[in-house]
Amino acid sequence: MIYLDNAATTKPDSECLKSTEKYLISEFYNPSALYKGGYGLQSELRETRKNIISLIADPENFELIFTSCGTEADNQAVFGGGKRGNVVTTEGEHSAIYSTVCELKQRGIEVRFAKLNSDGSVNIEHLLSLIDEKTSLVSVIHVSNETGIVNPIAEIAKKVKLKNKFALFHSDGVQAFGKIPFRLAKDIDMYSVSAHKIGGIKGIGALFKRKNLVIKPYIYGGGQEQGLRSGTENVFGIKNFEFAVLKKYENITNNYSNVAKLHDLMLKKLDKTLFTVLSGENCSPYILSVSAKGLRGETILHEADDNGLIIGTGSACSSNEKKRYSRVILACGYSEAIADGVLRLSFSSETTESEVLMAAGILNKIVAERKEKMA
Amino acid sequence: MIYLDNAATTKPDSECLKSTEKYLISEFYNPSALYKGGYGLQSELRETRKNIISLIADPENFELIFTSCGTEADNQAVFGGGKRGNVVTTEGEHSAIYSTVCELKQRGIEVRFAKLNSDGSVNIEHLLSLIDEKTSLVSVIHVSNETGIVNPIAEIAKKVKLKNKFALFHSDGVQAFGKIPFRLAKDIDMYSVSAHKIGGIKGIGALFKRKNLVIKPYIYGGGQEQGLRSGTENVFGIKNFEFAVLKKYENITNNYSNVAKLHDLMLKKLDKTLFTVLSGENCSPYILSVSAKGLRGETILHEADDNGLIIGTGSACSSNEKKRYSRVILACGYSEAIADGVLRLSFSSETTESEVLMAAGILNKIVAERKEKMA
Repeated sequence: MIYLDNAATTKPDSECLKSTEKYLISEFYNPSALYKGGYGLQSELRETRKNIISLIADPENFELIFTSCGTEADNQAVFGGGKRGNVVTTEGEHSAIYSTVCELKQRGIEVRFAKLNSDGSVNIEHLLSLIDEKTSLVSVIHVSNETGIVNPIAEIAKKVKLKNKFALFHSDGVQAFGKIPFRLAKDIDMYSVSAHKIGGIKGIGALFKRKNLVIKPYIYGGGQEQGLRSGTENVFGIKNFEFAVLKKYENITNNYSNVAKLHDLMLKKLDKTLFTVLSGENCSPYILSVSAKGLRGETILHEADDNGLIIGTGSACSSNEKKRYSRVILACGYSEAIADGVLRLSFSSETTESEVLMAAGILNKIVAERKEKMA
Repeated sequence: MIYLDNAATTKPDSECLKSTEKYLISEFYNPSALYKGGYGLQSELRETRKNIISLIADPENFELIFTSCGTEADNQAVFGGGKRGNVVTTEGEHSAIYSTVCELKQRGIEVRFAKLNSDGSVNIEHLLSLIDEKTSLVSVIHVSNETGIVNPIAEIAKKVKLKNKFALFHSDGVQAFGKIPFRLAKDIDMYSVSAHKIGGIKGIGALFKRKNLVIKPYIYGGGQEQGLRSGTENVFGIKNFEFAVLKKYENITNNYSNVAKLHDLMLKKLDKTLFTVLSGENCSPYILSVSAKGLRGETILHEADDNGLIIGTGSACSSNEKKRYSRVILACGYSEAIADGVLRLSFSSETTESEVLMAAGILNKIVAERKEKMA
């Protein structure tokens, strides 16, 4: 099987599994326990937090709250930061932000959505026009999980703070962390990440949080994670996450340029008379969104699956929403016909050139045959 | 090392790890994905839910929401069920309920705590006297994580419903599930469980929920878990949990009677001139709470650790609360001197007789020597 749905989840890195399996076997203790086996793990987790923070920020200024997934990190940021007045976000957010701000609205907070440009990036002028003195939180996705567009979050955060220095700035970085090189700019207050999109296992994520920022916990209990996230620490998940992300950052620029080559190769090989390319210039190379206009993406996905190729159609998560068209693709200004035919091809640093060539061949063939039948 | 802190966490079962590692290797897909690898896992998870429910309830009447831990399940039950009026709980709850209802109070819901009997069980008369027509939720721990006392939750739930049929009844079953034989009585609406207390891995728990009961989600996003808990499903964690708990239930009565023998043996071998026994008649055999009155439990714990014996002092989770005395032990009516010397010995079905004999010897020796020095 050729696996090109790495934006949905990645195959857990076997070296990471091997290196961290001891936390399932001998070092299984509860890190809140007072004996050596327990508090030893607690010290290790402190180091792990610093190691992960250092990859994109200064551990002097940031702390890390481990959560059970990127979605939980987004929930903690939105419910923790969006306490009053209004919350400003974009029409291009992942469901983990979109559904969460919709719930916030139910709880009496006004929610304002900034429009997207045709490439899927947020219209910064419009976003800024929505911010006023009552804005408590601004949340802008870093890399779109659907189009792959990279929002310039450092620049946006800076402009947001000029408009209202008390507004918190959060970004969902699930599709950026471990993939595109960046540092957390000083105006970014919170940043959500996930392990299973970069070779780690499912069930672990984290929220980067500026140290001087006081937010309420979202899950209450025994007071783990400095009181900010209760529940016995998922030590294996956390250590596996650390190993996976350190490995990604060791080679992040190489991985980036290799994946960029694969992305360009795919773009070159896909038949442009069959596919409309939705991912523009400023996209992460890890995601390539195209549309087989006039066909249904889901049908092509199934036929590709039968032919040994695994791809996505927009966001995996939104399959639960049971909506035919992606709200993000429509918000870019595309027609329903385009939205209906969307295919998301997403790469990892393990994807090979020959896989890309075969995948392009399979997709060209399926779509050409289907279009021929329709003609 | 002799490990007698199984109420804090258990060593993950190696057979379970082996049987479920394929979900980290070949079957790593996102269960929300539309291709075979994805929806195949979704179907498996449906079966898994039924398999787990069947162990203690009828899948016709209950559904299961997978969460990241027992604490999250408790948070979901409390914030989902305690929506208005008042919430009634007990002074014997785990922090996952106690801290959560304290937060509920901050949000404007009145919280009422029922007193405990001296054995740690809830005073049912007092609990019932706190319930009125405005009670939206009653939460009573099934097996105390500190004393091991078993609350008769079926009887309590029935009486609660007679007093107010609209009040929801929840129980934290983390220390009961997979250990003591029971079925969920018809008046119980929600029940929280955790995997890592019964041979599963950390990072996975679940909330049993009556099917006709409408509660709001607590984590919003892609709509996984029938919309009730968003975030990519932790497939490995869930399947590992299923395997671990099915294995426990296969032998639950045998395990129970074996552990009861170990519990009685420990009780017999501990020097009663040195230890006050806090766990009474109606306790789960998996937990034995004693106090070396006049000494500090933590000091004994460290010396035992140095001598190859791992034990707990009350709840592992409450070590983060930085309070010297357990609020639960004090609520039983014990003095601070007793509370200060508490040791919690907790067994698993893998604990052996020779481990118990050695552990009793180590504890008798440490406490005798320390008391001698003080005399």
